[in-house]
Amino acid sequence: MIYLGIDPGTHRIGYGIISLDGQRMLPLTYGVIENTGSDRAAHIRNTESSLDALIRKHRPDAAGIEKLFFTTNRKTAMSVSEMRGVLLATLGRHGLPIREFTPLQVKQAVCGYGKADKGQVQRIVRMLLKITEPIRPDDAADALAIAICCSAAPLSPPGA
Amino acid sequence: MIYLGIDPGTHRIGYGIISLDGQRMLPLTYGVIENTGSDRAAHIRNTESSLDALIRKHRPDAAGIEKLFFTTNRKTAMSVSEMRGVLLATLGRHGLPIREFTPLQVKQAVCGYGKADKGQVQRIVRMLLKITEPIRPDDAADALAIAICCSAAPLSPPGA
Repeated sequence: MIYLGIDPGTHRIGYGIISLDGQRMLPLTYGVIENTGSDRAAHIRNTESSLDALIRKHRPDAAGIEKLFFTTNRKTAMSVSEMRGVLLATLGRHGLPIREFTPLQVKQAVCGYGKADKGQVQRIVRMLLKITEPIRPDDAADALAIAICCSAAPLSPPGA
Repeated sequence: MIYLGIDPGTHRIGYGIISLDGQRMLPLTYGVIENTGSDRAAHIRNTESSLDALIRKHRPDAAGIEKLFFTTNRKTAMSVSEMRGVLLATLGRHGLPIREFTPLQVKQAVCGYGKADKGQVQRIVRMLLKITEPIRPDDAADALAIAICCSAAPLSPPGA
């Protein structure tokens, strides 16, 4: 089974794809979709086409995406939500079952502790996936954590 | 020139399409995309395919969409923003220039008064477009107002 994890953002969207074969968990690819400049229509096109290419290449069986949890400003929450809509629509066009997790759920599942910091998430993701080098940027490590969380969660049928 | 106006929502998305030929403004179609039930993946698919069909049929030259202005709750703002992302991505795939307006700008442009109520918007939209019957629901009248506002605004190039 192949799992895609996505850490949503506007200018930087983390992704991580892992395979799980029995107990053997391997990273297939990870990184960030970067949207530079301020042309939002171009950001949307770039996000769609980059995610589309990742899905076509790695053919995941399911996707996990982080829910927003904002204590910060409403404008950011609205921009990131718009990009989440773009991401969800792209996943949906590929018929992928989608699981959504709060940051707390991801940390709880991966680190066993809901308040784990970025460094702890990074260490445990590297350990689980046997990645020797540091995972940069943090968005990619977070996305791998989401993919791991997705692989451990019972799958809902598409559209549920 | 043909203009598409969109009033975003989660379960009900207003649309209105008008043509403008010199001084002559005509309604081509209007209504709402309705998303029933609670399956959000299905809502996203239905919204994309319904908007796609409208664009293919009426071939608008530009689209106007309302910006969110929320004094209400953050959860609603985030859900509607996600659907706005889906709508913006669909418009973008057709290469449509997109103009965004606040509710204040729409009312100001159409009614000459930023605090006009739903009844006033409805009356002026019907007068401008020579629609004799009441426009139901209000989301469709709002979408027509957005299309009118879009027709009056200078167009930015695609992606600007």
